[in-house]
Amino acid sequence: MGTPAERHPSPSHYDIVIVGAGPVGLMLSTCLARWGYKIKHIDNRAEPTPTGRADGIQPRSLDLLRNMGLKSAIMAHKPARVYEVAFWDPPKGGKGIVRTGTWASCPSFIDARYPFTTLLHQGLIERVFIGDLEKNGVKIQRPWTIKGFTSNEKDDPEYPVTVHLEHVDGTAKETVKAKYLFGGEGAKSFIRDQLKIGIKHKDPIAYVWGVMDGVVKTDFPDIKMKCTIHSEHGSIMVIPRENNMVRLYIQLASSTDPDFNPRKTASAEEVQASAKRILQPYSIEWERVEWYSVYPIGQGIADKYTLDHRVFLGGDACHTHSPKAGQGMNTAFLDALNLAWKIHAVEAGFANRSLLETYEPERKDVAEALLAFDNKYAKLFSERPPAANEVAAASAGAKAGQEENEFIRTFKESCEFTSGYGVFYKPNALNWSPSHPAQSRVVHPKGTKLVPGRLFINADVTRVVDANVVHLEQEVPLNGAFRIFVFAGKPSVTAQALRDLAANMAKKNSFYTAYARPDADRVSHHERHSPHSHFFTLCTVFAAPHPSVEIARDLPPLLARYRDHVYADDRWDRRVPDAAACAHAKMGLDQDRGGVVVVRPDGYVGIVVALAEGSATVDALNAYFGAFCSRKLGEAQAML
Amino acid sequence: MGTPAERHPSPSHYDIVIVGAGPVGLMLSTCLARWGYKIKHIDNRAEPTPTGRADGIQPRSLDLLRNMGLKSAIMAHKPARVYEVAFWDPPKGGKGIVRTGTWASCPSFIDARYPFTTLLHQGLIERVFIGDLEKNGVKIQRPWTIKGFTSNEKDDPEYPVTVHLEHVDGTAKETVKAKYLFGGEGAKSFIRDQLKIGIKHKDPIAYVWGVMDGVVKTDFPDIKMKCTIHSEHGSIMVIPRENNMVRLYIQLASSTDPDFNPRKTASAEEVQASAKRILQPYSIEWERVEWYSVYPIGQGIADKYTLDHRVFLGGDACHTHSPKAGQGMNTAFLDALNLAWKIHAVEAGFANRSLLETYEPERKDVAEALLAFDNKYAKLFSERPPAANEVAAASAGAKAGQEENEFIRTFKESCEFTSGYGVFYKPNALNWSPSHPAQSRVVHPKGTKLVPGRLFINADVTRVVDANVVHLEQEVPLNGAFRIFVFAGKPSVTAQALRDLAANMAKKNSFYTAYARPDADRVSHHERHSPHSHFFTLCTVFAAPHPSVEIARDLPPLLARYRDHVYADDRWDRRVPDAAACAHAKMGLDQDRGGVVVVRPDGYVGIVVALAEGSATVDALNAYFGAFCSRKLGEAQAML
Repeated sequence: MGTPAERHPSPSHYDIVIVGAGPVGLMLSTCLARWGYKIKHIDNRAEPTPTGRADGIQPRSLDLLRNMGLKSAIMAHKPARVYEVAFWDPPKGGKGIVRTGTWASCPSFIDARYPFTTLLHQGLIERVFIGDLEKNGVKIQRPWTIKGFTSNEKDDPEYPVTVHLEHVDGTAKETVKAKYLFGGEGAKSFIRDQLKIGIKHKDPIAYVWGVMDGVVKTDFPDIKMKCTIHSEHGSIMVIPRENNMVRLYIQLASSTDPDFNPRKTASAEEVQASAKRILQPYSIEWERVEWYSVYPIGQGIADKYTLDHRVFLGGDACHTHSPKAGQGMNTAFLDALNLAWKIHAVEAGFANRSLLETYEPERKDVAEALLAFDNKYAKLFSERPPAANEVAAASAGAKAGQEENEFIRTFKESCEFTSGYGVFYKPNALNWSPSHPAQSRVVHPKGTKLVPGRLFINADVTRVVDANVVHLEQEVPLNGAFRIFVFAGKPSVTAQALRDLAANMAKKNSFYTAYARPDADRVSHHERHSPHSHFFTLCTVFAAPHPSVEIARDLPPLLARYRDHVYADDRWDRRVPDAAACAHAKMGLDQDRGGVVVVRPDGYVGIVVALAEGSATVDALNAYFGAFCSRKLGEAQAML
Repeated sequence: MGTPAERHPSPSHYDIVIVGAGPVGLMLSTCLARWGYKIKHIDNRAEPTPTGRADGIQPRSLDLLRNMGLKSAIMAHKPARVYEVAFWDPPKGGKGIVRTGTWASCPSFIDARYPFTTLLHQGLIERVFIGDLEKNGVKIQRPWTIKGFTSNEKDDPEYPVTVHLEHVDGTAKETVKAKYLFGGEGAKSFIRDQLKIGIKHKDPIAYVWGVMDGVVKTDFPDIKMKCTIHSEHGSIMVIPRENNMVRLYIQLASSTDPDFNPRKTASAEEVQASAKRILQPYSIEWERVEWYSVYPIGQGIADKYTLDHRVFLGGDACHTHSPKAGQGMNTAFLDALNLAWKIHAVEAGFANRSLLETYEPERKDVAEALLAFDNKYAKLFSERPPAANEVAAASAGAKAGQEENEFIRTFKESCEFTSGYGVFYKPNALNWSPSHPAQSRVVHPKGTKLVPGRLFINADVTRVVDANVVHLEQEVPLNGAFRIFVFAGKPSVTAQALRDLAANMAKKNSFYTAYARPDADRVSHHERHSPHSHFFTLCTVFAAPHPSVEIARDLPPLLARYRDHVYADDRWDRRVPDAAACAHAKMGLDQDRGGVVVVRPDGYVGIVVALAEGSATVDALNAYFGAFCSRKLGEAQAML
């Protein structure tokens, strides 16, 4: 995979130049390095983030980090885990503050593996990525900066980008050629400025924030929870951190203030004095301040994420917003992930170059949603939160067919959005919809709860070869491949459909055969994920008890070769307590007849197809992949 | 805690000399190093175990490693996880082998956190401990050996042990003085021999085993499961390992053979040829052999684990048995843990020296049980395993009041034993029984499911300060302290009992006050586990929803100080689906009135006492601790 160094015309030719080693740059670099690309990655800081900055990893991002094998390194730092948000307000007609409610940060109506926010200093998170990069031979070049670049496909169709780099002290310069340039430089992006891409301010209101990380001594009982505190003396947000630290956010000024000054500032002592007043009747003293910063921030979104699909932007270079919802790093990760697998699909010869055109609309939509949410969230925070019994009653009402009220719906959407489970992509070539070229009676079978463009649903299953209980959604690592989950229902019912699936996949010009590995006959017996193709990993899930499944008997050889990815859907799930096959039931797939789910390399559902006898299933998959793949698919069958 | 180096009379004086850096020595060393003791730890090997040897971590041992904060380092090596054992036998009247059944290695009737066996090369496990030791300033001295020792309390009551050490090549010698000497040298123990402690062979049958670790290519479907395979060509045991490895055990000879030769051997090729015959009709080829060894083993148990309670033995030096049940390393860990906290309790001034006399009977009983089990297990393995429906039916029958049959009972006991959850200690000063000096109507309240000498029961609860869902049994780290779990029932019901508990604990000469930290007034606000005493960590669990608990309001200050150990018993548990307070219900404690559970530093229940108003609860605890503590407890109250 990827392009080994020796395949490039010279040592100064790279697959990609990445500028900025914050979350977005590191995620992009880490993915592409694992997939074998040659990377020049620079950052203008001499060291990773020493203190402060972003620190919130949302539930879905933790899933992603686990899928990359990085979660345990993050958790080894013993981050704080936020399960709940507490609201404190002045008591009716009284002084001081009282807790007026709590709100799960990832309530149980979201089927999350990790229903909490992980709080850890950004520098420690960066170092986990840097460690992984070093294993793959990529070292961040520091402190270096970008001085200029050009991009011209006509002059050099393969390496159209020329980038001028320089040591920050000007003592050394370098000019490199690359296929891509990525700007992950944060809100002040040189690359974005050079491209003359403007920033649109969705909400004209700007704020000045004070943020302070430190160790405190306090009798405030919720100091280890995320809290929003409103008092007659002002408002504050409390975020717990690792090592007994706590972060306080104080809004120092708003452009709605009559005397707004975007350069307003405050000393650490002033902020502490303010916090002391707000927290009354509780006391608070600082034992140590680790980081303190004042910064103005407005909601902004870049007009474009790329001009030519060679020079891309992501992360804070594309979107800025309030830090309150803890979305910055998470959105950055997903920008990078979205771009990474698409660059890989194009450069490895799997997808048309036009696939890259989906990066901006998919991620810009999410940024727009983030900014809209940011406003809504601010409003929600200034209101009374819904009581737990209101949510429960509303949910019960909704189940009974009644409408949820606006308040509850906004609350639930907020939770879905902040957890990361609410992020979704609109219909396009990757995310099937009725207007997609793949048109077939077998597409999107009735009852499926999977939605193209939304995340695959989490489910526990038993792996047949070793009887291990596993998280199905985690079984295929982030290897750049599409994940094809064959929910195979009852073996007795689907035997013929499985044989037909395999036979049609094996045909010349099927999506699968067209992208077979040229070295497939020399692949190790132990290869689990990519024995036949680098672009697909196949998983089969039977609705049967695991001891009853015999891989060699129940599966055609093509599917049986993925023996480490054969599962039994025989684990009980509290969300579908009466289902015989809980994973099938959660996906909304027929427990006898199953269905085929294509999941994009980034974990989002692409298409759901019935598992039918005959060629219809593979025909539909050929049509789906044909919408963005580099080769004509399925013609051999069509001609038969 | 412990004895800092500067408190010893000279640099050659140590708290303990530990000989052997296998599992038993490393566990002992790791515990004592964390608690501040000065350790001389030697091993006669130049490096940790390079290949082979023990590799099975049982479910309960994984709990223990997690409690020590070492689990994630173990799991980072991606060990194999065995959830099931498969049985293969010749088909009735046919050739070859067929699967005749499977058997969960830790079935669901055991309430285990980690219902699987973790398989990892012993050397990697050793390195995790060595890494932890180095953090605490202990370095294994290699390759050094013990050449002699004396122990004489009369001549030197404080450092009675003199140990002569030597580099294995004889180029350097050292004589050190120590309070204790520990022999964790394995089956061939110099220390045991010097003490003239004999080995009793419980079962006169001896075996010769061949064991081979390697990477294979096979179509045998259960190569990633633990398997017992009987065929007309012989028997074999399959154990999966990390990195696609598999371990095969082949019994080469038994003393029941007519021509038994304990020196029988076989080449790796002979063993492979034998495995090929046994696995027919499946094929097997070795891509690589990592380790191969032939060793004779008999069941043996040392007559004594110590003579003078200064020089102790543990691990394989005390007990040898077949490797089949994967118990060796686990038993070694528990030998060391049992001794570690008792040495600590005595040396830190908490317990009478006589506490050390409980080490041998507690651990020797377990070794006897292990050997008895080993025989039973061998027998079970040669029989048909019970089918899953038999177990289910028998369990249902048992619930309905019927007797379980012998076969099922043996099966269940086997699972409990091999998982580690079945290990228990008999009544003594630590493990309350009706003959214990602590006699009171409040001891062992009716209905409790906790059994002194058995493990504390696992339960999920919500930590109040941060709303984190936690594993209650893991909340107190292995810090050498007793864990006092105050199940506080309903706050409205137990308010007075809690005040009385705190008031009586605060009295002079209570178990708690007698062992208060001298520096209690200077302890950091952030100290979670030991703010008042190094010997007790207090946890309070209310049978109430977590947002309703107000620590400062619902608990007297003494208990409120342990604010990070206040929990709400508000998590649902499938094992007690109808309980309002599942943790209380699992423990068999009154959901309104609660109860107090004392858990030994090693996780075994010491005593259960009702949470009563008045002084009865603390009186009973004083009587309990008074049975082994160094001070007279509770007299102040008695005199009132």
